[in-house]
Amino acid sequence: MEETFVPFRGIKNDLNGRLMCYKQDWTGGFKAGFRILAPTTYIFFASAIPVISFGEQLDRSTDGVLTAVQTLASTALCGIIHSIIGGQPLLILGVAEPTVIMYTFMFKFAKDRPDLGSKLFLAWTGWVCVWTAILLFLLAVLGACSIINRFTRIAGELFGLLIAMLFMQEAIKGLVEEFRIPERENPNSIEFQPSWRFSNGMFALVLSFALLLTALRSRKARSWRYGSGSLRGFIADYGVPLMVVVWTAISYLPARSVPKGIPRRLFSPNPWSPGAYENWTVIKDMLNVPVLYIIGAFIPATMIAVLYYFDHSVASQLAQQKEFNLRKPPSFHYDLLLLGFMVILCGLIGIPPSNGVIPQSPMHTKSLATLKHQLLRNRLVATARKCMRNNASLGQVYGSMQEAYQQMQTPLIYQEPSARGLKELKDSTIQMASSTGNINAPVDESTFDVEKEIDDLLPVEVKEQRLSNLLQAMMVGGCVAAMPFLKKIPTSVLWGYFAFMAIESLPGNQFWERILLLFTAPSRRYKVLEEYHATFVETVPFKTIAIFTIFQTAYLLVCFGITWVPIAGVLFPLMIMLLVPVRQYILPKFFKAAHLQDLDAAEYEEAPALSFNLATQDGEMGRTASFADDGEILDGIVTRSRGEIRRMCSLKLTSCTATPSKEFRSLQSPRLSDGVHSPRISELRGEQSPRLGGRGPFSPRTGEPRPSNLGKGG
Amino acid sequence: MEETFVPFRGIKNDLNGRLMCYKQDWTGGFKAGFRILAPTTYIFFASAIPVISFGEQLDRSTDGVLTAVQTLASTALCGIIHSIIGGQPLLILGVAEPTVIMYTFMFKFAKDRPDLGSKLFLAWTGWVCVWTAILLFLLAVLGACSIINRFTRIAGELFGLLIAMLFMQEAIKGLVEEFRIPERENPNSIEFQPSWRFSNGMFALVLSFALLLTALRSRKARSWRYGSGSLRGFIADYGVPLMVVVWTAISYLPARSVPKGIPRRLFSPNPWSPGAYENWTVIKDMLNVPVLYIIGAFIPATMIAVLYYFDHSVASQLAQQKEFNLRKPPSFHYDLLLLGFMVILCGLIGIPPSNGVIPQSPMHTKSLATLKHQLLRNRLVATARKCMRNNASLGQVYGSMQEAYQQMQTPLIYQEPSARGLKELKDSTIQMASSTGNINAPVDESTFDVEKEIDDLLPVEVKEQRLSNLLQAMMVGGCVAAMPFLKKIPTSVLWGYFAFMAIESLPGNQFWERILLLFTAPSRRYKVLEEYHATFVETVPFKTIAIFTIFQTAYLLVCFGITWVPIAGVLFPLMIMLLVPVRQYILPKFFKAAHLQDLDAAEYEEAPALSFNLATQDGEMGRTASFADDGEILDGIVTRSRGEIRRMCSLKLTSCTATPSKEFRSLQSPRLSDGVHSPRISELRGEQSPRLGGRGPFSPRTGEPRPSNLGKGG
Repeated sequence: MEETFVPFRGIKNDLNGRLMCYKQDWTGGFKAGFRILAPTTYIFFASAIPVISFGEQLDRSTDGVLTAVQTLASTALCGIIHSIIGGQPLLILGVAEPTVIMYTFMFKFAKDRPDLGSKLFLAWTGWVCVWTAILLFLLAVLGACSIINRFTRIAGELFGLLIAMLFMQEAIKGLVEEFRIPERENPNSIEFQPSWRFSNGMFALVLSFALLLTALRSRKARSWRYGSGSLRGFIADYGVPLMVVVWTAISYLPARSVPKGIPRRLFSPNPWSPGAYENWTVIKDMLNVPVLYIIGAFIPATMIAVLYYFDHSVASQLAQQKEFNLRKPPSFHYDLLLLGFMVILCGLIGIPPSNGVIPQSPMHTKSLATLKHQLLRNRLVATARKCMRNNASLGQVYGSMQEAYQQMQTPLIYQEPSARGLKELKDSTIQMASSTGNINAPVDESTFDVEKEIDDLLPVEVKEQRLSNLLQAMMVGGCVAAMPFLKKIPTSVLWGYFAFMAIESLPGNQFWERILLLFTAPSRRYKVLEEYHATFVETVPFKTIAIFTIFQTAYLLVCFGITWVPIAGVLFPLMIMLLVPVRQYILPKFFKAAHLQDLDAAEYEEAPALSFNLATQDGEMGRTASFADDGEILDGIVTRSRGEIRRMCSLKLTSCTATPSKEFRSLQSPRLSDGVHSPRISELRGEQSPRLGGRGPFSPRTGEPRPSNLGKGG
Repeated sequence: MEETFVPFRGIKNDLNGRLMCYKQDWTGGFKAGFRILAPTTYIFFASAIPVISFGEQLDRSTDGVLTAVQTLASTALCGIIHSIIGGQPLLILGVAEPTVIMYTFMFKFAKDRPDLGSKLFLAWTGWVCVWTAILLFLLAVLGACSIINRFTRIAGELFGLLIAMLFMQEAIKGLVEEFRIPERENPNSIEFQPSWRFSNGMFALVLSFALLLTALRSRKARSWRYGSGSLRGFIADYGVPLMVVVWTAISYLPARSVPKGIPRRLFSPNPWSPGAYENWTVIKDMLNVPVLYIIGAFIPATMIAVLYYFDHSVASQLAQQKEFNLRKPPSFHYDLLLLGFMVILCGLIGIPPSNGVIPQSPMHTKSLATLKHQLLRNRLVATARKCMRNNASLGQVYGSMQEAYQQMQTPLIYQEPSARGLKELKDSTIQMASSTGNINAPVDESTFDVEKEIDDLLPVEVKEQRLSNLLQAMMVGGCVAAMPFLKKIPTSVLWGYFAFMAIESLPGNQFWERILLLFTAPSRRYKVLEEYHATFVETVPFKTIAIFTIFQTAYLLVCFGITWVPIAGVLFPLMIMLLVPVRQYILPKFFKAAHLQDLDAAEYEEAPALSFNLATQDGEMGRTASFADDGEILDGIVTRSRGEIRRMCSLKLTSCTATPSKEFRSLQSPRLSDGVHSPRISELRGEQSPRLGGRGPFSPRTGEPRPSNLGKGG
């Protein structure tokens, strides 16, 4: 994305880019068939459950003026609009915690003013929304989102971890509340006796931990050993919603021996209850708001506008991280403009506005990457099997797989036809055929594990389309009608779900993984290297990683502290935005450029791309070099089921392998690799290291790189 | 063990064998230093907690005549006697569930007879014990234990799994009871109101699952990534007792908001309470028992004698399984004789007798194997480090490690000095030195990961001594005095501990692993092969494994059903003993001898040992054959921290490796390997397969066996 502050240029670029692929956004979605329901359901729950819980929170703090009905309505409405005419369809919209805090604050303010009161509260918030929208228009038109590409991993991941902390905090707070008597309830009813409060709390502990543990387990079902593949796939796709249903059902088991209200369940009026739809006609009252308050509405509006500008753009950015290899263009400015319109719309019908949310948006992309992987895999496996039935040779099998892969590629007008993936597949074919010896002999299933082969082969790709977003938003809308069923969910299941969302957002967050690395015993760091891991683990000295991570953690804790400040706390994003100049001007003074690049790649620091093709080169090496008999290094970009990309360096530490330990040691010891990329590592990463000629302490015996079929990009 | 039915010969052999190593049993224990406390504490808890719980059960069913004080006293007394003058010091003694059931039945019987009553109940059980002891003497003298070596894996593991099921059943029953009002309690006290009962039940769920999950986690602490090595070691050694303490402490957290008695805690009189020691003088009343009842006591005595004969011998056998590589001889007959004396002793002082218990006895051996591994490892690491500081070459380092290893070997008079382990170490030295290239160059820590190396090198050995058994028995005795503290433990923590013991006894049980294998999806079976696994996985067709396992499972369920039959249910061991003739005469008609041998090795079927040395041969192959560049096969006997031995076949399934998949397929498909050992496997196992010359479908390119340092014994 170019940095442009010429008015309207950002919006125009976005529109041009997204219009090109608009038709494909729909056809692609429908082509996926029923499988699109897996990411849809997953995101629907991740979207609806917090919104319901925030609605309940608003219900308490606005004396029932706003309820879960309104928050769900806003999420559904904005979601549907955004999924149809929005720019980036990966972005998920919803009513978020900061909005709830702002509305709570505004209600408290309005209630105490005799000329406003709770009666004109919604009309006044309508004005706040109008001002907010105007500010958002200005930001969008002036190209404010251009600076989003200065927003690097350090800030994005810090924000992600902070959101995870806030979700976890919410879960813990909710659980503690289960032991207490809720406000606005009759403390004399039987379920609020101390004994039943204690029962309720203990029951809540059981339900929330049960949901958390089973939900986490079910997400990993694809790698389970037991059950058929389709069952495992079903559990992985739908296990989390299923667990919400299962534990809700279980919460009814002791229904006979406990009074009504144990365990506590969601509270919300039905949308057809009298008074539940008063807010929809708020536009009539807006002119009754005193002028002073109309002007004063500008103050909360600036706060909300800053918040939305930040949250919306960052949520969009995190949903489009480099690792996902997206093919379609981003649309920051146009989306911000559209957000402005949606904020006005919500304001005029008296519901709290929605904005882009974390962690749901990146969760959405991840689940679509899994979907795409499944689709590609099934197609290629079918193709390969068909070929093998016809006694095809390995070369022919790969040829037809290539063809099928090419057909599956999104035909985008403005791009050369999917050059990337195809090229890699072709290269890897050559390597594999040569490494397995006989390219022309017929292959069959007993010599060739098709599914495994293809799993290893496929790069991360995302099923970019609009259907899943539209469907999940419509399902959220359906929740309004399904309120009587939703009210059966125990609140404790919700707290478990909050904790699940917090934990689910951690893997793939390099900041989190660096924190874990700090706590890893030095003697166990080799285990990190044995698994999928980020580049910095090998290229940056441990001490540097530690200092960088400690700085980031301290910053995170400051931000977390700020969220506890009443009202002003919602502006913690300003603190995170401060990281942009810190990263650009201050950090380079303390860290070496090469290290910063690996820990936190920033586009403005990147060297021009080298036209160096590792894949081809590796292929040649694969054919000419003989491999060391011990100390084998497997290196490449590896696709994880969750959609993250890591490097895998599998150094087998067997008792005969003395030499690789040396490399581990050198990676662990700042002395040996201080300040320079290890030449071996640079070599593997496909960089033309100027130091490569000068130093080469590792003999070829220590292990040659294997033919890396996915070796491009480090 | 030879099968001899000549009177007294079995006892004499046992005594001769154990007297030879009696001194070393003590010196070895003391030499281990403070580290002996790890297995001691671990077994103390595993021993004391069920005994306390059974004591509570007896307390309820005998109207307080027998309590936890008596069960603890019996366990401590018999444990101390057995650890000092017993034959096999690995065997753990304790009051077990069948004893409790028999005593319950006898109390019910005695209570209803006017000329016996609960007053003469203990005197009458004294007579039962006398008869039991006489029967045990007879069995011991006549060499009845000789048939124990016809008791194969199929029966032993079935018994182990049955005990695990009974422990789990106890845990579930206990948890359900937490929701109800206990018998013999005042149902009007506040803690028995329905609301507090529900609270108590929910609290119990939280505590027991928390204990179970944290205890299971803590046992794996040695492989954690976080924390220093010594901390991880400490948690692995003492984590389970620690968790009992931690969760007991946590159970006091809500003490202010709940009435006394929530959560329910252990109930037992203090040993110094009046009436608690009435039983000790029971011998005075024994002559007051009517003669008819003295004679009638023979009937329950036969049942108990059969039970003890079986339990005691099987517990001892399971503690001495082949995988543990014990060096010291067994002592079945002498131990049974001694058990007879202890039964009389217990009967005369009015406490229920103890016998050998499962799963505590095999748990004891396993924990001592871990201890021995730690001791050997520390010594060898220290030696290697010292050498490396003196710039020794790899050859010298291994030389001095060999020397240290030799010194650590138990010098037993009747054996050639520890030929086994030493030989392997020597062989592996040669292989390693040759495979790492330069045997004479100095090595340092950066090129040679000593700890890892030694971990891979060491065979399973057990620290066979008497100290841990003596100490744990004394600690159980100490529990009697510590009763006021024990009473602080919530019963729910006990149920969690029962579940923990059940689960902890599963790994290493091949029957259990075969059940899991049945449920493993065919496409995931390769994962089993990638890990440590038993030989049969590779050598027996899946269909045969399935049939064998289904038969065994059906048999298990029948035995489990029998335990539910009132009173007669305690005789379920007879059903298990029936497996001996079934295994010997019926199973060979349905299964091929080679398959049976791998699934359930029986000594009477074993072929004479071949003097074929795999280690040496492999070493030669390692030096002459060149390794394939992909598809690497690592095969060998591997030591696990828990003490089991498995074969590890690590076939790396990378995308370039088409050929190894073929081997997996052939292992999975009964078609390909039906009825014959795969030649590759036989070759690796060091068997001289007659089929080896005839068939050889796998080219050397698919991977050569690596130099296997511990390759002996399949």
